[in-house]
Amino acid sequence: MAKPSGFPKTQPAKLLSEDDMIALWLAPLAGPAGLGLRDDAALITVPAGFQLVTTVDALVAGVHFFADDPPASIARKVLGVNLSDLAAKGSTPFGFLLSMTLPKQWPQQDLRAFIEALGVMARAFECPLIGGDTTATSGPLTFSLTAFGLVPDGQMVKRTTAQTGDLIAVTGTIGDSALGLLLKSDPDAAWIKSMPAHARSFLRDRYLHPQPRLAFAPSLRRYAHAAMDVSDGLIGDLAKLLRASSQTGTIDVETVPFSPAAEQALLQEPSLLQTALTGGDDYEILLTFPPNHQEALQQAAQSCGLALTVIGSVDRLRDAPSSPLKIMRQGEAMSFTHGSYQHF
Amino acid sequence: MAKPSGFPKTQPAKLLSEDDMIALWLAPLAGPAGLGLRDDAALITVPAGFQLVTTVDALVAGVHFFADDPPASIARKVLGVNLSDLAAKGSTPFGFLLSMTLPKQWPQQDLRAFIEALGVMARAFECPLIGGDTTATSGPLTFSLTAFGLVPDGQMVKRTTAQTGDLIAVTGTIGDSALGLLLKSDPDAAWIKSMPAHARSFLRDRYLHPQPRLAFAPSLRRYAHAAMDVSDGLIGDLAKLLRASSQTGTIDVETVPFSPAAEQALLQEPSLLQTALTGGDDYEILLTFPPNHQEALQQAAQSCGLALTVIGSVDRLRDAPSSPLKIMRQGEAMSFTHGSYQHF
Repeated sequence: MAKPSGFPKTQPAKLLSEDDMIALWLAPLAGPAGLGLRDDAALITVPAGFQLVTTVDALVAGVHFFADDPPASIARKVLGVNLSDLAAKGSTPFGFLLSMTLPKQWPQQDLRAFIEALGVMARAFECPLIGGDTTATSGPLTFSLTAFGLVPDGQMVKRTTAQTGDLIAVTGTIGDSALGLLLKSDPDAAWIKSMPAHARSFLRDRYLHPQPRLAFAPSLRRYAHAAMDVSDGLIGDLAKLLRASSQTGTIDVETVPFSPAAEQALLQEPSLLQTALTGGDDYEILLTFPPNHQEALQQAAQSCGLALTVIGSVDRLRDAPSSPLKIMRQGEAMSFTHGSYQHF
Repeated sequence: MAKPSGFPKTQPAKLLSEDDMIALWLAPLAGPAGLGLRDDAALITVPAGFQLVTTVDALVAGVHFFADDPPASIARKVLGVNLSDLAAKGSTPFGFLLSMTLPKQWPQQDLRAFIEALGVMARAFECPLIGGDTTATSGPLTFSLTAFGLVPDGQMVKRTTAQTGDLIAVTGTIGDSALGLLLKSDPDAAWIKSMPAHARSFLRDRYLHPQPRLAFAPSLRRYAHAAMDVSDGLIGDLAKLLRASSQTGTIDVETVPFSPAAEQALLQEPSLLQTALTGGDDYEILLTFPPNHQEALQQAAQSCGLALTVIGSVDRLRDAPSSPLKIMRQGEAMSFTHGSYQHF
């Protein structure tokens, strides 16, 4: 990792064994289901009247984050993207398992900083560590996190249950993170140079630090028909939701909420619209709900300090559409070459 | 992957998208909690009177398996080592999440073979896929599998509950897998060349294909005080179990069960004893139990077609021992430089 000049060089850290690392660094993060991290498995007691929601996301250096991102930022992203899934399903965090695959050359003080930041975030969202696995790799730093949440019986908010006539909305703003990624991957672009420092910091922060919308989860359970978090890009994720629900929908690009920083970038460089709408890593919640719940949802979002913006609606099912989603802009249909981030 | 000559060369496979791969290859493996793999999360309903046991293990090419192992064998190992943990905790499989981190050059037909073999094993052990994540990596093939099992309330068999006076036993035979690994990593060793082909096949199979001892899980719940599976080596794992239970113990190396193939290897090359006892990947169950349950456990093991061998006992706690485990051989104490496989 690059150090400012004059800063002491990284000292080879005293190597802790895996057992000591678990006992000294990880065990303090453990919740009751983790059994002190002294067993081979975690033991989850699901309260009567609840179901367990579980999801896994792997994050790989060079794909989902940069190996030289601050270890604390990597930690916030690894836990944050999984908490974002729990939020979108209307669940309350219960705990997580962490599988760490570490290159031998990753400095142990970076691992320490990673674990500390993970602990801070886990406490903030009341989602303790309950177990995990650590192994060495010849490849890039890779984390795979399995998150658990609780929902009252039958109340998980699914992706497959959007209904004809629903409105389509998103929390927060779209595209900041994809633009924040460009700050790093394409720093010489003209739009970046023209942007004030505070706007650049805002976009960078949005890329580094997903904000799981957990405070909004109970309102999703109460008022939404369907939801998912926006991780692979708004357009592609909405198309997935509609397809999974056997519905079609229409959005108006003019209504998609952008932050002032993103607005400024789009003004400078209009072709960034595709990046903003399809780049992903937004970790906002995309939801559909019946129009009569709009006011209650708007109020609920406001009380969480969140914007909630209606961007379209679920149509009557069109016959055999080539795409389930129609994207309108100033009365014209638009299309994009890719709807979302593709791993393969 | 090396192909026999005359075999058609690997054709560049038509690339399936991630969505198609999920729908066509993975969804047929999904259990009800997986919601058809069409949502962002799995939804687990734990029956009244049960708790959920969960464990995660990552397997990395070049660490836990060879990149050129048959994809079907990799699949059996990835699922097998996790099912082995469920068995050792006395639980019945419920399902699993699979996080796959794939190098772009891994042929898609190998992925197909991997998934097919995973499906066969998942059906055999009634442990369906319930969700997962697929991402690309610049590094080695890496799988992280989170397994779930059910246990009646309060009956998970822990690692921390061995009691003074318990007998210590293991299922099956020890060391085969560590010796099987040497067949590949040190093929020119004299002991290997002196070994008949069927013995080499046996050891290779033990390395490639862990056999989770799930049939024995109900008997562990009924009769054992403590258990864990032997994954990092008998000596190190037993020391961990004793330490976690705040106990000390003694084993007699002469009683550790070896297969005929391992016996033969040890006869040719006595220094392999350390490999056999500390090399790991045995995926047998190490348990402690009160002596009055010995006969019932022996009968239960026999009815599962398993050997169960008493190898020592849990002592009265010795004062501040340097190691919780005393290893005896022909009346003399032995020690090993490493008790188990160390990742760091």
